[in-house]
Amino acid sequence: MLTLGARCWLPALRFYSSAPRASARLSVRDALGAPGASGERVKVQGWVRSIRSQKDVLFLHVNDGSSLESLQVVAESSLHSRELAFGSSVEVQGQLVKSPSKRQNVELKAEKIEVIGNCDAKAFPIKYKERHPLEYLRQYPHLRCRTNALGSILRIRSEATAATHSFFKENGFVHIHTPIITSNDCEGAGELFQVEPSSKIKVPKENFFSVPAFLTVSGQLHLEVMSGAFTRVFTFGPTFRAENSQSRRHLAEFYMVEAEISFVENLQDVMQVMEELFKAVTMTVLSNCPEDVELCHKYIAPGHKDILEHMLKNKFLIISYTEAVEILEQASQNFTFTPKWGTDLQTEHEKYLVKHCGSVPVFVTDYPLAIKPFYMRHNEGGPPHTVAAVDLLVPGVGELFGGSLREERYHVLEQRLDRLGLKDDYQWFLDLRQFGSVPHGGFGMGFERYLQCILGVDNIKDVIPFPRFTHSCLL
Amino acid sequence: MLTLGARCWLPALRFYSSAPRASARLSVRDALGAPGASGERVKVQGWVRSIRSQKDVLFLHVNDGSSLESLQVVAESSLHSRELAFGSSVEVQGQLVKSPSKRQNVELKAEKIEVIGNCDAKAFPIKYKERHPLEYLRQYPHLRCRTNALGSILRIRSEATAATHSFFKENGFVHIHTPIITSNDCEGAGELFQVEPSSKIKVPKENFFSVPAFLTVSGQLHLEVMSGAFTRVFTFGPTFRAENSQSRRHLAEFYMVEAEISFVENLQDVMQVMEELFKAVTMTVLSNCPEDVELCHKYIAPGHKDILEHMLKNKFLIISYTEAVEILEQASQNFTFTPKWGTDLQTEHEKYLVKHCGSVPVFVTDYPLAIKPFYMRHNEGGPPHTVAAVDLLVPGVGELFGGSLREERYHVLEQRLDRLGLKDDYQWFLDLRQFGSVPHGGFGMGFERYLQCILGVDNIKDVIPFPRFTHSCLL
Repeated sequence: MLTLGARCWLPALRFYSSAPRASARLSVRDALGAPGASGERVKVQGWVRSIRSQKDVLFLHVNDGSSLESLQVVAESSLHSRELAFGSSVEVQGQLVKSPSKRQNVELKAEKIEVIGNCDAKAFPIKYKERHPLEYLRQYPHLRCRTNALGSILRIRSEATAATHSFFKENGFVHIHTPIITSNDCEGAGELFQVEPSSKIKVPKENFFSVPAFLTVSGQLHLEVMSGAFTRVFTFGPTFRAENSQSRRHLAEFYMVEAEISFVENLQDVMQVMEELFKAVTMTVLSNCPEDVELCHKYIAPGHKDILEHMLKNKFLIISYTEAVEILEQASQNFTFTPKWGTDLQTEHEKYLVKHCGSVPVFVTDYPLAIKPFYMRHNEGGPPHTVAAVDLLVPGVGELFGGSLREERYHVLEQRLDRLGLKDDYQWFLDLRQFGSVPHGGFGMGFERYLQCILGVDNIKDVIPFPRFTHSCLL
Repeated sequence: MLTLGARCWLPALRFYSSAPRASARLSVRDALGAPGASGERVKVQGWVRSIRSQKDVLFLHVNDGSSLESLQVVAESSLHSRELAFGSSVEVQGQLVKSPSKRQNVELKAEKIEVIGNCDAKAFPIKYKERHPLEYLRQYPHLRCRTNALGSILRIRSEATAATHSFFKENGFVHIHTPIITSNDCEGAGELFQVEPSSKIKVPKENFFSVPAFLTVSGQLHLEVMSGAFTRVFTFGPTFRAENSQSRRHLAEFYMVEAEISFVENLQDVMQVMEELFKAVTMTVLSNCPEDVELCHKYIAPGHKDILEHMLKNKFLIISYTEAVEILEQASQNFTFTPKWGTDLQTEHEKYLVKHCGSVPVFVTDYPLAIKPFYMRHNEGGPPHTVAAVDLLVPGVGELFGGSLREERYHVLEQRLDRLGLKDDYQWFLDLRQFGSVPHGGFGMGFERYLQCILGVDNIKDVIPFPRFTHSCLL
């Protein structure tokens, strides 16, 4: 062991500085934020986003994904070369100086420009100086992240993910990885994907899990397991629906943020967390990615900034399902589906309700028992034939959250499962009510719809890195 | 809209305090950490973990999952009731006072104890005062989280998840949700799960995605897409292998932390991040969950504390694959598989190497090209017939990380894909090298193996909430 000698030890160097270098390596974001910019010698790496050649001077903009803004590079014409073109990757060494222009604080006075990887402009589907429509970019899932629009959306998605984890951690929630493959069908929806070993494998197919296995449609039932031990739990992961839909609001694979809270007293306890989550995550995103959000609100969804501000500064409204149906029945608008107590709200109804409520997000509570899943808590003593369910409707998107109190009473749940012929399959779920049951409730939020809602992005396929839907599974 | 009236507004109250209450509601963790404990009136909710009745006094321990430690409740005997038993859920109101005992700082002098949910002790598989073996608990995936052992492991898992996200965020990595359903087979391993709409659905099965679709085995190729736009990206999500294995180190569904870094200069740049990640996350876990880690190191894996400290305080070692084979060839131990240059390292070899290196994690680098996947970078000018691959071997677990530099040279990659007959399928992957290609590299870490490694938990099924493996998909 000792014979391995000194060269075997990983040298105790700082992160990323594995060899001594003449110039400090900086990300574009750090270079742009450099306080003095007083001739510091640095090295910046990234992709050329624009190039402008004058008689004596060459201007480049270099972007490395660390921010929307690129770093301006100024060089003598002699540093130009044929390979230096839009889309190519470069390493630039030089001095970070104060920019004489008002358009940026800092620029890089290049001493050396090295082209790392060429870019064949003719074949490159992203064209210099063109603002490609999002639909066009969807054809190139492997390249669209190189545009300003997708770059901004993906940085915002990353920031919103981090903010979601922080929100729950700060509020004492334990994170649980609920399973992706499951033998349950939580919603009874039937729109399930089934999982089997690929035919290449020698194991007899039917036998891999010994039971039929599906992709999860919700982590709720598994979170309910955990709420018998932890009073606050959450999960944030992929969920699946084999829906034959090409709608701008549906995907076959999408992300859900789900939480479950034990010892809740009423639906307001749950709604409070939903509103807090929405506002806290959004405020963090606005404060950490202002330029990225501005891009969306300026070029993708003009006018959306005001809509979002209106949502944030107002308390969310609460109406009951029964009131909602009354409002719809009294509406002067003609609906394709006539609103009627006992039937589900349609997209056109959701839109009308949000508008009616002044484009503030609105909680609709206490839905008919008959149209909701078995696990929701029966409102005894409350509005008749209803369950303690709540949906949050938001402008532009419709249903963003769904939640409920869960039926924690053993005998009520047992009866309901028995009537549905599900008692044997859900004995474990009944067990949770047999051993120290507690009143609990929770919710799920569609993460892509959340991003659509705050950014104003019309099509859900543009707020997820690799969208999966009917007839499409690119890469 | 105005007619909705004041009652529609969600009252502006603090988180969780939706109604005025006599006593402040506290989590057990907050109650235990209350600084003064000077008779403050509080309400605590949770599950009874122990109960001891003396002539005049009743002692309870109440746990709510917020910490391993329970809160001691002291009450007059008159507050006892038949329903108050091990496993039942309770709400206790009273005064938080300094405890006369040395075993805790604080105790709750109960004024009112309400049993919320009974617990049928006979039917409850978890027995009072018994320390059930982990194998026994595996039979009850819906109840095992109610034990100290699983409670601690799940809190640690949650903390390690948060620490992983923080590590990457602080180091400028953008989080990417790589897809779960994919038309690729990254490793060419063949042990894939296939995804199809369940037979209940009316859509012609073959047509859902128009192509065969599988569950991902790694997010790497999709991260490589992103490293053409962002210099640092990571993903942390579920991955799948249809391996017919019941081993203590394999699952059909497990979590991977994967990162990809652009403009790397060599393998050391990648190893540096691997070591930093391991150490930073572990230090955070140790500092945020000391009692939970102590439980594991005391009852589940005695002696493991020293093993972990030894890993943390030493620099990880580096040896080449070629050196590793030499060490194995010179070993006095008889191996089942004879070590030989050009073949994969077996578990027995990995174990020997780690021991040989003084039980410090060891990076093994530069593997034979012939046994590694097509995307790894050929070491031209380096050790002959090798690729710039690296595995990190750790005590007890074996391979914890796998990483490599990726082949960024268009023509080298094209040739290799052509030879494998994969050129058409991976044209998009070649595209990444045609438009501003950059040297890049990355790694993946098995998250469950990481938890096994730091906690000393022998079986991987005990560090994931709901394990999936051959013949088992419970709940």
